[in-house]
Amino acid sequence: MQANSLNSRFQQIKSNKIFEIFVISIIVFSALVVGAKTYDIPPAVEQAVVVLDWLITVIFVIEITIRFLAEDRKSRFFRSPWNLFDTLIVLISIIPIENGELAVIGRLVRIFRVLRMVSIVPELRVLIVSLMKALPQLGYVMLLMFIIYYIYAAIGSTFFEEINPQLWGDVAVSMLTLFRVMTFEDWTDVMYETMTVYSLSWIYFLSFIFFTAFAFLNMVIGIVVSVMEKEHQALAAANGEDGSSELAAIRQELSELKALIKSQRGDFS
Amino acid sequence: MQANSLNSRFQQIKSNKIFEIFVISIIVFSALVVGAKTYDIPPAVEQAVVVLDWLITVIFVIEITIRFLAEDRKSRFFRSPWNLFDTLIVLISIIPIENGELAVIGRLVRIFRVLRMVSIVPELRVLIVSLMKALPQLGYVMLLMFIIYYIYAAIGSTFFEEINPQLWGDVAVSMLTLFRVMTFEDWTDVMYETMTVYSLSWIYFLSFIFFTAFAFLNMVIGIVVSVMEKEHQALAAANGEDGSSELAAIRQELSELKALIKSQRGDFS
Amino acid sequence: MQANSLNSRFQQIKSNKIFEIFVISIIVFSALVVGAKTYDIPPAVEQAVVVLDWLITVIFVIEITIRFLAEDRKSRFFRSPWNLFDTLIVLISIIPIENGELAVIGRLVRIFRVLRMVSIVPELRVLIVSLMKALPQLGYVMLLMFIIYYIYAAIGSTFFEEINPQLWGDVAVSMLTLFRVMTFEDWTDVMYETMTVYSLSWIYFLSFIFFTAFAFLNMVIGIVVSVMEKEHQALAAANGEDGSSELAAIRQELSELKALIKSQRGDFS
Amino acid sequence: MQANSLNSRFQQIKSNKIFEIFVISIIVFSALVVGAKTYDIPPAVEQAVVVLDWLITVIFVIEITIRFLAEDRKSRFFRSPWNLFDTLIVLISIIPIENGELAVIGRLVRIFRVLRMVSIVPELRVLIVSLMKALPQLGYVMLLMFIIYYIYAAIGSTFFEEINPQLWGDVAVSMLTLFRVMTFEDWTDVMYETMTVYSLSWIYFLSFIFFTAFAFLNMVIGIVVSVMEKEHQALAAANGEDGSSELAAIRQELSELKALIKSQRGDFS
Repeated sequence: MQANSLNSRFQQIKSNKIFEIFVISIIVFSALVVGAKTYDIPPAVEQAVVVLDWLITVIFVIEITIRFLAEDRKSRFFRSPWNLFDTLIVLISIIPIENGELAVIGRLVRIFRVLRMVSIVPELRVLIVSLMKALPQLGYVMLLMFIIYYIYAAIGSTFFEEINPQLWGDVAVSMLTLFRVMTFEDWTDVMYETMTVYSLSWIYFLSFIFFTAFAFLNMVIGIVVSVMEKEHQALAAANGEDGSSELAAIRQELSELKALIKSQRGDFS
Repeated sequence: MQANSLNSRFQQIKSNKIFEIFVISIIVFSALVVGAKTYDIPPAVEQAVVVLDWLITVIFVIEITIRFLAEDRKSRFFRSPWNLFDTLIVLISIIPIENGELAVIGRLVRIFRVLRMVSIVPELRVLIVSLMKALPQLGYVMLLMFIIYYIYAAIGSTFFEEINPQLWGDVAVSMLTLFRVMTFEDWTDVMYETMTVYSLSWIYFLSFIFFTAFAFLNMVIGIVVSVMEKEHQALAAANGEDGSSELAAIRQELSELKALIKSQRGDFS
Repeated sequence: MQANSLNSRFQQIKSNKIFEIFVISIIVFSALVVGAKTYDIPPAVEQAVVVLDWLITVIFVIEITIRFLAEDRKSRFFRSPWNLFDTLIVLISIIPIENGELAVIGRLVRIFRVLRMVSIVPELRVLIVSLMKALPQLGYVMLLMFIIYYIYAAIGSTFFEEINPQLWGDVAVSMLTLFRVMTFEDWTDVMYETMTVYSLSWIYFLSFIFFTAFAFLNMVIGIVVSVMEKEHQALAAANGEDGSSELAAIRQELSELKALIKSQRGDFS
Repeated sequence: MQANSLNSRFQQIKSNKIFEIFVISIIVFSALVVGAKTYDIPPAVEQAVVVLDWLITVIFVIEITIRFLAEDRKSRFFRSPWNLFDTLIVLISIIPIENGELAVIGRLVRIFRVLRMVSIVPELRVLIVSLMKALPQLGYVMLLMFIIYYIYAAIGSTFFEEINPQLWGDVAVSMLTLFRVMTFEDWTDVMYETMTVYSLSWIYFLSFIFFTAFAFLNMVIGIVVSVMEKEHQALAAANGEDGSSELAAIRQELSELKALIKSQRGDFS
């Protein structure tokens, strides 16, 4: 029974408000350490940062261990993508990476530790989940947009390659250039350049802007409408039950009345 | 009856899921071939690409033929704009075009084959149709916008031509410049240049931005409202039938009750 | 009685569909003439354009006269702002302006004749009226935005004048610069310049962008909501009448029933 | 009782329409004076401006005093943030600041006097309050956006610092650069520069633009939906009361009918 009592003690720790606040402040602190590293800091401070970094890793390891031990069924722990993410981030930051090539990954993992903020704060988790849910809905609009991009990029790299190979070298580079055009970033420079050779190439650019803007607008409206619809359905469901039950009650009363009158009639017959 | 059995066999092929997936993958593959051509490829690969291109064309011809033969009434086949588009694209890509002038069209047709993706995937077709439906609705706002553009372009090319003939040379070039101003692309450069001669020309640019932004906003809101309205009507229709039928049922019961009481009364009189 | 018969004849002409189409095509033609003038045209064509211009003016004078004569009460003719606008445009284009200074006005009037399109086509007129109606609603948000602009411009021209007098010379120039910042047009160039002297001036720019973006968002949402509200009210009014009348009918039936039963009861007492 | 009569006289002055218009015109006038100072003005006019400035301060002191005296319970006066703001602005502008360092604050206070417009006009006050109310709602989306910014800035300053220390020097500067990228302000220049070293760095920029645009869209939709919801609830509440009361009345009638019939039945038993 000792294992069980340990388990419940870990659960107590895990659900403790102070523990949560402590972990959040450690994450914020780790973010500050990550930020501090980007400044020119004296060697003494740099060594302190290394120690702090090591300390944060240790605290994170302990925290994940507590959470794991607090879980009743251990296999369920790794079913949650948030737990998986947390464990992965912590595990990689334990591995001592010193040599140049992999040091980059070590640095990246330390930065991604800031993302643990999202996995800790429930409101942010809800936000991310709802963003994820909105994505597949946009699937076909994005596919359509990709097709538009691909066709325009193929046309662009066929005709404009000789004019400016840096912008229209191949289909991939052309797509990047077209994205630039869509963000209106110096797009006239790109257009004026092609217009010196093909004076009608403004049709290419204007039609592209028109199509993508229109598809984008459609996407936004699609999201707004689907969000609204859900709201309406929720509202209608709430109202419908009310209204229907009221009407049903009236019908019930009416049939009772009818029965009453019929029975009354029976009295005389 | 053999023709008929062939017809039904073609229909079987056409509605076969594997056939559909095969055609889609051929389209994706043709897109990749189109993309590959934009890279610098060794002559050996280039020859392979030519063979692949020819293969894709053959497969497309076979596919269109199967679809055509699967149709019961042949005349109906060409009534669908999607079928017409598919046939046109395939037909033009059969014609051997070697000489320089027309080779461009050949290349374009190979690129436009990617668009067959839209005519194959039903969800994309629905998207395009709904985009098309939204267009005429915007007709008058776009006419108004064109009038605004035309008037500003006429004013611009009248007054600013001497300042920068490249931007304000004639009414067409001025409209392009105004579109650039609307996308905020280096619009201050254009304005500062004219302000050196006409110091009050900022009124021209600011009023133009204001008018077009306002008309654009109006357009977007127009689309959103009309989309919403359709949703509401669909919802109201669904609700209305429910509610009305319930109320009608209650009225029916009431009139039955009345008849009952009246008949009861008649018993005594 | 002859005047009256003339009047009705003019009315016939005015409401004639062919007359309307003729006037619209003349306006489109006048727009083309205005556009043609912005191109370098040979002297022969230029003289033709002058003749055409004169012809259009004559046709417009005749058209306005017919409309005026078709009106029953002449005073009412000038109450419509559209009629006033049309008459003004036509009147000014009659006045022969040859000397340089005023020739500009003559040219502008010829351009503004394109606007007659709006006063002729009813759908465009409705659009303009609805745009006008949306304006006062935005009054206070625009006042707020102006106050934000004014305060930031005053601060900007106080602190940044020495850095770049062309951008921050006085409060008016600063407001133009701030509008440029709001459109994100090379705004970082403006910011980096001021940051060389005041390294914290990014707060000034970022807070300005935040405030104006927020106010702008508020404005857009305000319009959308007010448009929706009107739709809802229209829908609710339509539904309300239906639902209420149904319920009222049910109540009516009930009170009739009650009276019936009461009278029945009276039969026995 | 004299204090009381004075109090009510001050209240009379305060709620006087002419008094309000007078104060508003003084504020507008003070704004013009602030604007005038940014122009190069001859010394004579400058002295006049100083006098005017002093006059405005005096009028503002008198106005605040009247308002304070008009308040019944003096402690309640400072509970309103608008009153506090007004008093603070007026108090600071009384303090004679001549020496260079603090003169800046004096000038800023004179500019912020324009903000008194907001505290005077009730419609603007309502607007500001509603803007403030919308802010906390956005809290978590903004926190999420800050996390995205922070992580990307940390990555950016780790990898791109050597390429351009001015743009990617430390985490703070990187965040400013990323804001610039989000506004699409010459973002391709920033990207092309990093792509010379890390050719895949376009993934960094495109994913950042995608994430922030998506989060921003989510924010806007969030505001729109919450605004709509309030409208709906208000509408539903108004409708619900109507519909429910009607239905309740019908039920009431029905139960009365039942009682009537039952009593009728009793007559015979």
